[in-house]
Amino acid sequence: MKICLFNNNRLGVVDGNEVLDVSSVLTRIGASEYPYPRGDQLIACLPELMPVIADAIQFARRYPLSKVTLRSPVANPGKVVAAPVNYQAHLDEAIEDTATFSRAHVRKIQETGLFLKATSSLVGPDDSVYVGLPDRRTDHEIELVAIIGKRAKNVLAKDALSYVAGYSIGLDITIRGPEERSLRKSLDSYTVLGPWLVTADEIENPHALAMTLDVNGKVRQSANTKDLIMDVAELIEFASKFYTLEPGDLLYTGTPEGVGPIQPGDTINCEIERIGKIIVNVEAS
Amino acid sequence: MKICLFNNNRLGVVDGNEVLDVSSVLTRIGASEYPYPRGDQLIACLPELMPVIADAIQFARRYPLSKVTLRSPVANPGKVVAAPVNYQAHLDEAIEDTATFSRAHVRKIQETGLFLKATSSLVGPDDSVYVGLPDRRTDHEIELVAIIGKRAKNVLAKDALSYVAGYSIGLDITIRGPEERSLRKSLDSYTVLGPWLVTADEIENPHALAMTLDVNGKVRQSANTKDLIMDVAELIEFASKFYTLEPGDLLYTGTPEGVGPIQPGDTINCEIERIGKIIVNVEAS
Repeated sequence: MKICLFNNNRLGVVDGNEVLDVSSVLTRIGASEYPYPRGDQLIACLPELMPVIADAIQFARRYPLSKVTLRSPVANPGKVVAAPVNYQAHLDEAIEDTATFSRAHVRKIQETGLFLKATSSLVGPDDSVYVGLPDRRTDHEIELVAIIGKRAKNVLAKDALSYVAGYSIGLDITIRGPEERSLRKSLDSYTVLGPWLVTADEIENPHALAMTLDVNGKVRQSANTKDLIMDVAELIEFASKFYTLEPGDLLYTGTPEGVGPIQPGDTINCEIERIGKIIVNVEAS
Repeated sequence: MKICLFNNNRLGVVDGNEVLDVSSVLTRIGASEYPYPRGDQLIACLPELMPVIADAIQFARRYPLSKVTLRSPVANPGKVVAAPVNYQAHLDEAIEDTATFSRAHVRKIQETGLFLKATSSLVGPDDSVYVGLPDRRTDHEIELVAIIGKRAKNVLAKDALSYVAGYSIGLDITIRGPEERSLRKSLDSYTVLGPWLVTADEIENPHALAMTLDVNGKVRQSANTKDLIMDVAELIEFASKFYTLEPGDLLYTGTPEGVGPIQPGDTINCEIERIGKIIVNVEAS
């Protein structure tokens, strides 16, 4: 099933070129007093909501996809975890281009570990990316994103995929330079997620997905998740050794080779097999 | 005013050795449907709640401080921003001790920038720190924490302190090693905040506060915020150039010299002038 949030945080199920409005299901989550519970409550409740959603589809109002505004399919992630250079060909291009890639950051993922992106940087596919520091080089990075479905601590790789609620397309927009990744990649609008969450049951093997990114129609990144250095399961094992992953936590799995600069006026087209497409505009801030 | 959260997320005002229970004020925040709004809603509403809290004090039930469990005074921070080596003497000790401090991470703050800690690592002063990876060196780091009071983007240092709701004591527990800080410092329980939020009006100058940390009664860190390389105002200017700071965002301002290892069974005593004390136990996980 393809689950989305659209317009003013309405809940939808995507069926071909249409969105079925199943927002009535959200009342099942219930309102919360302050302080709010940890973890995204839609994702945390998804297993029990799935049959309710299936029922609601029958009576749902339908909208053409082209007429709605898609939001990030996860509204309240507790953390955005991301993998640094996680494709060998991207590591190679970074090693080669010393002018662009700060030496301190070009190391193997096993040594660098994972980094965090600010949740305040998260936007949906129909928002724009706003270039925050125009005098710095800002790059596109397409990534497969795994959306954590249930609490995970010290999970082994062999069990890890059962902790994934679904998959989505991510853009990890990045300023090049000397600062730590958690700063350079956390500007407002620099974390794009969409177009929807494809539930894990529809993606038998997340390690065989072709992905392409073009800017203004010119292909920049073309790769396949089979070439991930640490695959989704290994990333979850690695992350959950350090901290607890909560429902709705986002795991950006790293970008392949072909990263390059973007500027206001550009249009970024992203596609990942079995998930879909997003088209993201770049604007001046 | 000293504002705390205690026991089962009750709201308190600290008066000497007592806590006044003003939890009735929390109903003013109101319940929220999914998805929850961005930013901590208690901190966001604090300016309008202050007169209500002042009224509630008159009728408040009093508890001895020693009989309550203090929670993190901010329950729902959107992000935890932290400064790397931000005292010259700590930079010097890190440069000298090549066995402990990974070369990739010993650089000036102006170059390294700021980093993020996972909000899932946040605990209160009456929780314990659980050593997550016992085969790695884990250090204590006492820090002054500024709690952001209102939305801040592109704020100048000269105006920045007016964006601070209050101050608190922070422990930025840290594993040494090669990984990026946002991973090594984000284990569950590795971000301690307490004992309460002291509203900014009670701290005329945040850059003249003595602080000490001892482990099992032996002083390890003793310093003063006058020696911050980037002071609180400059940190807010720097951070808000990159991303929007939201109400409740925590700004850990960096630790002074004297960092050292901790292990299960240790007791960490922290004190910052004009704020208070926290006593934190270290346990095996």
